Amino acid sequence: MTSSLDAEHLARAALTYLAEPGDRAVGVWLRVDGPESLIAAVRNGSVPPKIEAAALKEGHQRRAWIHQALRSWQARLAELPAERDLAAAERDGVRLVCPGDPEWPSQLDVLGDSRPYALWLRGNADLRHSCLRSVSLVGSRAATAYGSHVSAEIAAALASRGWAIVSGGAYGIDGAAHRGALTADGLTVTVLACGVDDPYPPGNRALFDAAAAQGVLVSEWPLGRHPTRTRFLVRNRVIAALSRGTVVVEAARRSGALSTARHARDLCRPLMAVPGPVTSETSAGCHWIIREWGAVCVTQADEILEQVAMVGEHLTSRSPVVAAADMDLVTARVLEAVPARGGMGPATVAVAAGVDVDTAISRLGQLAAGGFVVRGPRGWRLAGKSRA
Amino acid sequence: MTSSLDAEHLARAALTYLAEPGDRAVGVWLRVDGPESLIAAVRNGSVPPKIEAAALKEGHQRRAWIHQALRSWQARLAELPAERDLAAAERDGVRLVCPGDPEWPSQLDVLGDSRPYALWLRGNADLRHSCLRSVSLVGSRAATAYGSHVSAEIAAALASRGWAIVSGGAYGIDGAAHRGALTADGLTVTVLACGVDDPYPPGNRALFDAAAAQGVLVSEWPLGRHPTRTRFLVRNRVIAALSRGTVVVEAARRSGALSTARHARDLCRPLMAVPGPVTSETSAGCHWIIREWGAVCVTQADEILEQVAMVGEHLTSRSPVVAAADMDLVTARVLEAVPARGGMGPATVAVAAGVDVDTAISRLGQLAAGGFVVRGPRGWRLAGKSRA
Repeated sequence: MTSSLDAEHLARAALTYLAEPGDRAVGVWLRVDGPESLIAAVRNGSVPPKIEAAALKEGHQRRAWIHQALRSWQARLAELPAERDLAAAERDGVRLVCPGDPEWPSQLDVLGDSRPYALWLRGNADLRHSCLRSVSLVGSRAATAYGSHVSAEIAAALASRGWAIVSGGAYGIDGAAHRGALTADGLTVTVLACGVDDPYPPGNRALFDAAAAQGVLVSEWPLGRHPTRTRFLVRNRVIAALSRGTVVVEAARRSGALSTARHARDLCRPLMAVPGPVTSETSAGCHWIIREWGAVCVTQADEILEQVAMVGEHLTSRSPVVAAADMDLVTARVLEAVPARGGMGPATVAVAAGVDVDTAISRLGQLAAGGFVVRGPRGWRLAGKSRA
Repeated sequence: MTSSLDAEHLARAALTYLAEPGDRAVGVWLRVDGPESLIAAVRNGSVPPKIEAAALKEGHQRRAWIHQALRSWQARLAELPAERDLAAAERDGVRLVCPGDPEWPSQLDVLGDSRPYALWLRGNADLRHSCLRSVSLVGSRAATAYGSHVSAEIAAALASRGWAIVSGGAYGIDGAAHRGALTADGLTVTVLACGVDDPYPPGNRALFDAAAAQGVLVSEWPLGRHPTRTRFLVRNRVIAALSRGTVVVEAARRSGALSTARHARDLCRPLMAVPGPVTSETSAGCHWIIREWGAVCVTQADEILEQVAMVGEHLTSRSPVVAAADMDLVTARVLEAVPARGGMGPATVAVAAGVDVDTAISRLGQLAAGGFVVRGPRGWRLAGKSRA
């Protein structure tokens, strides 16, 4: 068994095993000479002259920097999986998405040299299309009842207007945000700091399964990796970069959620915060970024959409982002196969549309993100007035 | 018995009986020809040519406007008090302060033609000196337990740093703010929309008595006048103009407190709001002005002082605004008469300092505003380390 990955994809897959995400040495290398050159160098131990030159341009004494980086990647060579392991992961529904792929969310490109090398995904939704109209909701793990309530309410209201909810899958505010989106039959994107095969925290396992069925799990880390405090912080830049804007729902002054907020601010994405009682330490971070960073004080979904939606976009519920007339033929066939009532599983849709199951799943995700179809308890069906 | 008022003061006193505060026709007249000319015109029924010319400059058809205004003032001629009534009010501790008087708060002059004609005062503190370092705390009458708690806490913290609290004497946020200041042995300025002899609401009578003893009651309306909804709104510009900055502690979207906030904004004074739960309608006005008007989101006294204090001013507790060396001789004598421990009534201080009681009361107010003396349960004593 071999995986379906080509040489560049295999190189990027390997890179996720060898280097920690956000490594600027990797970023420079990929920009200058691509991932295959990097993997070759890891194997043969020598840095090409053009990479040495690029490293020198990065500043003083950086020649040593690129050689040190190479040695750190070599130290993990033994962790590279066999190709058949990748093929097995594919059969388990795990897929790799790289820059340039149809499902790659190109808004991540603003991250420059710290752009993810590749993303590991698991779930039914198309990542790129889900994030076209998405908002990140983040906050404290140690949320109050107030914070969890507001997070779920806002997520449900945004989801019912056709917006996907991006968050980190943690306890507290994150979990409430994902659950709110799922409750409203919306899409949710879970950005993990560990392998998508074993999402953290394990106590949220049922939530992760639902979020994969009705959305997608995303990670820069390969299968089997566990989260660390640093990994959570590195992961946060992806949460901020994936969505149109970031809302801090509830956060203490030292909450990690403020690192996501800082990334949103630095990327010039709309940054918002939900206020709370001044007597609650868990809202102090929100008040602080409103006062000091100019985060917009938001109290409900409409106010968030005023910040992130384009003119008119939030006036209709689930308005399509792609007009049906502009749709490619395969997607149009999949759309035609979806029933107006009841529901249909992706395999049945595939047969009816004359496409393979993977294609059906991917196109259903795009159609859901565009507001054309919804996933109900009995499977996929058309969105529209027939809906309760 | 005659009152101690000279001709200009008598004219301005009369004006508070004849015209509603904020009447721009009065403002134009006072600017062009002074109050005695206006009172003479009310009595003889004719508008001087220079006033007609000024009224015309104000725009189209305004000649009729000034004559209509004159007739409305004449309609109230019967309400003018006898001079002996003014003298009786003075004996009851009521005083009139006019532009140019030592106790006049010149920051009101930014109100231009809607500047108060005069202010009726009752209480021990010197209005001008009290307001040199003051913050307005305003909000809903229908405050929640949360809002009342936060209002009292912030007022007490500001008062303990030597800042006076300005508010409107209403139930809810206003009352809690005055009480917080009184609890911390601070000064409080109560700006009424009715006569200072019968402050509204009567249910706050004990509070008004304490606020007069440890501060000052202020009104643009003469004795005996009752408040109306319009008068509250007109009054609000004075609350905004008297202090260094305005904090909305808790307010619904349609709360009258937002009119005070609007005046603060229009006067370019620092405008602040305290956030609360987004689930509370009574905080919706605060969140709205943070989002839409750029009110600064504040959660505690230190953050308010960052907005209103000059550099270094809030670093010390009750730091004097007037150095003792710069003090005039009469004030210095009053200061010398105040005991370090225990307490002394103003009459005793007057005898010890060799001044009359009115002078003693006025100078004690100035000294309190400057942080030199405090009023305790047993009377006036020096501020300082001997204080618990």
